[in-house]
Amino acid sequence: MGGDFGPPVTVPAALAALKVRPFLRLTLIGDERQIKPLLSSVPAFIFDRIDIVHTDVAISSQARPDSVLRGNRDSSMFLAIDQVRQGLADACVSAGNTGALLMAGRHLLTAIPGIDKPAIMATLPATRSGGYSYLLDVGANVSNNAAELYQFALMGAVLASSLSDRPRARVALLNIGEEAHKGTPEIRQAAALLADCPDVNYIGFIEGNQLFDGVADVIVCDGFTGNITIKTSAGAVKVMQRLILGTLSARWYYRLLALLARPLLADILTELSPSRYNGATLVGLRGIIVKSHGNALRDGFERAISHAIKQIEDDVPALIAGKMKGCR
Amino acid sequence: MGGDFGPPVTVPAALAALKVRPFLRLTLIGDERQIKPLLSSVPAFIFDRIDIVHTDVAISSQARPDSVLRGNRDSSMFLAIDQVRQGLADACVSAGNTGALLMAGRHLLTAIPGIDKPAIMATLPATRSGGYSYLLDVGANVSNNAAELYQFALMGAVLASSLSDRPRARVALLNIGEEAHKGTPEIRQAAALLADCPDVNYIGFIEGNQLFDGVADVIVCDGFTGNITIKTSAGAVKVMQRLILGTLSARWYYRLLALLARPLLADILTELSPSRYNGATLVGLRGIIVKSHGNALRDGFERAISHAIKQIEDDVPALIAGKMKGCR
Repeated sequence: MGGDFGPPVTVPAALAALKVRPFLRLTLIGDERQIKPLLSSVPAFIFDRIDIVHTDVAISSQARPDSVLRGNRDSSMFLAIDQVRQGLADACVSAGNTGALLMAGRHLLTAIPGIDKPAIMATLPATRSGGYSYLLDVGANVSNNAAELYQFALMGAVLASSLSDRPRARVALLNIGEEAHKGTPEIRQAAALLADCPDVNYIGFIEGNQLFDGVADVIVCDGFTGNITIKTSAGAVKVMQRLILGTLSARWYYRLLALLARPLLADILTELSPSRYNGATLVGLRGIIVKSHGNALRDGFERAISHAIKQIEDDVPALIAGKMKGCR
Repeated sequence: MGGDFGPPVTVPAALAALKVRPFLRLTLIGDERQIKPLLSSVPAFIFDRIDIVHTDVAISSQARPDSVLRGNRDSSMFLAIDQVRQGLADACVSAGNTGALLMAGRHLLTAIPGIDKPAIMATLPATRSGGYSYLLDVGANVSNNAAELYQFALMGAVLASSLSDRPRARVALLNIGEEAHKGTPEIRQAAALLADCPDVNYIGFIEGNQLFDGVADVIVCDGFTGNITIKTSAGAVKVMQRLILGTLSARWYYRLLALLARPLLADILTELSPSRYNGATLVGLRGIIVKSHGNALRDGFERAISHAIKQIEDDVPALIAGKMKGCR
């Protein structure tokens, strides 16, 4: 039910995922009066792998996060995560209220032993390596100490390896300089913990301008910094798009050129499309929850589903639990 | 002597500034063997307004910041700021080592009474309003308490009004949400201090994605967050430029199109050119120091000079000192 569009986006995305994965089953949780009409023309080989759990209640994106626990335990979000808790589902994918998702996730699934605070890990374009990097925490927390940053690094490495098929993910700490004496005491202490842990491929500090260079697979920071970083990047990309479109419409021959260059512009906008980078994982819980961006369209939501499937295949929560028994 | 290029950039920029401002005088401080050849063909009406203070010593951009105070008091940077301290110059403009500039600035000029910590204020493009916004602190500090954030807001407002000719600058705090309960205790406390101060046009919290929307003239955050924010923005813009150029060269007809579209691309790159946004001010000192980006070219360095001149004309340090006697 979540996100800017609800079932008109999430249901077609679910159907598309089912179409290409013959062993996938999906449970759609929400208002069946909105869901069922979207399933009317679905062929039997897909329809047979869909369950519907009906509920009238949905958490709005403006709701207070704690409302999901107070009086809304029959909401689609709560019920979806509870499916994971009961072992009826292997993962939950939602485009809903992030704060509520996190709160219900922590309450129902609880944290992996050794993890003090779960985090949200987002996907970044890494243009130079032609792939993706991962940034955490992008907003599950407001501030984090050295031990938490260290835990983010370990779980981020496990998750990034699963999502990107890179066996030894390179882990960096986001800082205001590359030299060892730079940054807050928390960051310098986290660096010391990581340098001491042979189990993680720690490569040192990186700065904001290196975020998209593909020098690291996993970039670790506190939730405040990560949230502002990811939103600033989105804002900067929007500015550029606005500038390009503004310049294009400024002169008549630019408009003509834009007509000729339409496939080129489409290619560029595809490269930058947020759907390519959609799917943030709530990492550190005893279960898999993937958060789709609220404004994602079908392709984006489908990508969030595929993120969840990757993590199911590798059993990422179990891998993280194993990792936490290693160092320290 | 500073920046990636030294006198071949700073001297022509200085000459260009002198050419359009008949009452401006400039003192060039550094190695006269490098400076003098660049002045050989300068007409008398400009040459008469140039002084040279020779020194062999320059602080490299890789040097430890404190080296400017330890054993390098004859460096061009130290001597330039000392000109301001002695009242021989009204402002200092440098493309050199930021940490050293800050350290020498604090040592020689000292902070304005009421200011606990100076900050660095950078210029951001604000595309929607067609102008600029200002962000501070972008790296003079590693962490800041509520009182310091409050002081940044007050001095930022004074400086932004001077630079942009907007009488009542709108001031916002950078945060992870717009609601009053969001963010760190420091930010929430700074918000309370600002809301209590009728002397400042405080408009509330803004998020990272609103940085370039022109909703605020001055955006306040701690030095760690600001440094990562400004570098992340620069990184995101570079990614986009790389994507556009990569897409352009991917197919032969795109390359053909790029040839036709050369003036269009030039226009877009001008819009995004860092020289348009060059010139960060070290604010909170009893004197004016403007820091040019190290990789600025002539136009960019000239813009940094004009930032300094604006602040001289308005006597920004005196305005800030007056403001600090107001609230609290």
